[in-house]
Amino acid sequence: MSFREDGHLAVDWAANYLERVGELPVLAQVKPGELTAKLPAAPPEHGAPFTDVLHDLDELLVPALTNWQHPRFFAYFAVTASEPGILAELLAAALNQVAIVWRASPASTELELRTVDWVRQLLGLPEGWHGHIEDTASTSTLAALIAARHVTGRNAVVCSEHAHSSVEKDARMLGMELRKVATDDELSMRTDGLELDDVAAVVATVGTTSFASVDPVRELAERAHAAGAWLHVDAAYAGSSWILEEERWSQDGVELADSLVINPHKWLLVPMDCSLLWTARPDEFREAFTLTPEYLRTADDAFALADYGPALGRRFRSLKLWAVLRCYGAEGLRAIQREHIRLASLFADWVEADPDWELAAPLRFSLVVFRRKGSDEENQRILEHANASGEIFLSHTKLSGRYVLRLAIGNARTTEDDVRRAWEVLNR
Amino acid sequence: MSFREDGHLAVDWAANYLERVGELPVLAQVKPGELTAKLPAAPPEHGAPFTDVLHDLDELLVPALTNWQHPRFFAYFAVTASEPGILAELLAAALNQVAIVWRASPASTELELRTVDWVRQLLGLPEGWHGHIEDTASTSTLAALIAARHVTGRNAVVCSEHAHSSVEKDARMLGMELRKVATDDELSMRTDGLELDDVAAVVATVGTTSFASVDPVRELAERAHAAGAWLHVDAAYAGSSWILEEERWSQDGVELADSLVINPHKWLLVPMDCSLLWTARPDEFREAFTLTPEYLRTADDAFALADYGPALGRRFRSLKLWAVLRCYGAEGLRAIQREHIRLASLFADWVEADPDWELAAPLRFSLVVFRRKGSDEENQRILEHANASGEIFLSHTKLSGRYVLRLAIGNARTTEDDVRRAWEVLNR
Repeated sequence: MSFREDGHLAVDWAANYLERVGELPVLAQVKPGELTAKLPAAPPEHGAPFTDVLHDLDELLVPALTNWQHPRFFAYFAVTASEPGILAELLAAALNQVAIVWRASPASTELELRTVDWVRQLLGLPEGWHGHIEDTASTSTLAALIAARHVTGRNAVVCSEHAHSSVEKDARMLGMELRKVATDDELSMRTDGLELDDVAAVVATVGTTSFASVDPVRELAERAHAAGAWLHVDAAYAGSSWILEEERWSQDGVELADSLVINPHKWLLVPMDCSLLWTARPDEFREAFTLTPEYLRTADDAFALADYGPALGRRFRSLKLWAVLRCYGAEGLRAIQREHIRLASLFADWVEADPDWELAAPLRFSLVVFRRKGSDEENQRILEHANASGEIFLSHTKLSGRYVLRLAIGNARTTEDDVRRAWEVLNR
Repeated sequence: MSFREDGHLAVDWAANYLERVGELPVLAQVKPGELTAKLPAAPPEHGAPFTDVLHDLDELLVPALTNWQHPRFFAYFAVTASEPGILAELLAAALNQVAIVWRASPASTELELRTVDWVRQLLGLPEGWHGHIEDTASTSTLAALIAARHVTGRNAVVCSEHAHSSVEKDARMLGMELRKVATDDELSMRTDGLELDDVAAVVATVGTTSFASVDPVRELAERAHAAGAWLHVDAAYAGSSWILEEERWSQDGVELADSLVINPHKWLLVPMDCSLLWTARPDEFREAFTLTPEYLRTADDAFALADYGPALGRRFRSLKLWAVLRCYGAEGLRAIQREHIRLASLFADWVEADPDWELAAPLRFSLVVFRRKGSDEENQRILEHANASGEIFLSHTKLSGRYVLRLAIGNARTTEDDVRRAWEVLNR
């Protein structure tokens, strides 16, 4: 194959896809197993030209895509793989760095430390924190719990009933005991009666998955530390909003955290996957992972990023983070987030102004949680019809047992027209 | 920015890099912190054109790369990001699938199951095994140990003294007790006196990192199962060689494994990262991770790939595996591996024919472990000079306390001339 020729075809394919993605159904309109039935059951014996891959991508795979790049993707947390991020992934794959130790890729190791520190500065986080990149918040929180258990010698984890499912899964994987705490009217973790004396880690969430609600981080941090527990903050979605001064209200107390996870693949235009994990206690954190004994530690240990998380081999993920930060600049990222928050606020206004609808949770960041005044079945039917139309894709959650809808704004292509269209489809 | 225009520039940059990579130093010729000092300490406020990224890539990052794509990269395990794999990463980033559940990406979920099953067939592994993709063998083995502890209710892990460091790190992260077992003259795990009654998992290695030695998998599997323990096989490097009938001697007993990890990013031309994890006991494996209670299980659970490993969000990794399998076909992959094995054998012949050198371990797969007859210091000096020359890059290991050199062949660009050049540099 000619890499150059095929490469130009691939770029054109990607460019065409991104230009027309808004015309595709948002949610894949296929049944489970439908794609599988079309793929050969046996592997190919002979090689085929790369154009065959592009052909089958169109014919077989595109119909089975749920289009996360679609401007009317409003489910889960909407995300964006921006153009510099996409191209940086091409470059990273071509360079194929495997950063197991510093010398195996000085470029990947040092760019990672530098760009993660750039994000720290942009978000107004404390100096001196050590940050690196994991794949997802599940892994970042897993690493934090491992560090917490190592440091405290304890085995219990405390989080709110609305914490992300990964906290429960992580605790389960580690054989740690999970204690879920009820929330108050604002869907924030309650702190009355909290007993932390035998607790390894308290996980505070800033921007819960269901409602984007915010736990009282400062109080939790103070109480955790008084009890000798580790305070981990999961701000996977909402933490990115701290690039905006006006959203830093939700950062109160985060400077006291022992570790913090924020995912630039959620709301900072970086393609999947890129999860940032900082710790205020790098030496102790590292001790939980490293196999290098104390007496062999050197000044270069900060460069041994595999010593701060589960994986040894590390992909050159910082390249896309660097490209996005370079090409948008802080002001470009701020402008996009401000627009998303404005659009969410606009949609929330429409909901509140309509006697048939109501907000189900306080508006936070760019997530609107709402419902039609009526039965759960009616709300479920509305959502299913809307998603089946292919015009929009929203997800739902449960609040006090009731079925509520979530409209999450986070795609850089989303315009006011797209949000208006969502409102129209839901009201049809 | 114009994605199309910048994309063509990025492809040309990557094509130029791959064309001239053999002229660059293999090992980065920089000191720790040298790149960091050149990168701005503060993040950019304003956006820049993508061409600035390409410019700084040349000026700042390329000198700090250790070039894993270089034909004379012989360190660790040499790898290849092949051209279809690189372009598939571009496409995957453009599509930005986040496969948290089936509906979030039917394409990613079903292509992953299908392509991993293609590899299963190519390697001659048992039907019915459930396979999925993790990032690295560290994570795959972590998942296997989690499953083993869940199934057995026990807490000890047994592996050979030459097992990969990730086994020790994984056990440490999970709070499991690791027991290392001595090896015999062939550097295979000894089985005499093995007590497995309280053991959760035995990790057998096919192709150890240091020597590519092979543990007695059949016997370990039989003894593990007799004792109620889980048998995990780490064939991260060597397992790929089972696409060759003549290398299946090392597969003996693997059909008895409870789980198996093989990394196509090592020796199947797939860019970093792509680690395949199969289990013969998918229901029990899944139970260790899932938060879905038994009574809610449905026939679609096999599609919930996040239920078989730590992460929830999953990148569209199968696209590159698919592209590589499609464009090379089984015969293309076999031809490359056969050539690598031939080159390793050739190099081993030169070592054996030279009275100043000796093989330090039996030749296995495409890894030659050897040393100059002389002191450890002499061998170390030879390696340091060779690596500092930038012409070749080899790594070393310790065998019974002695310093030995490793020549690992695994890059698709490597020719007989490159291997000859390595021999010349080492003899200089």
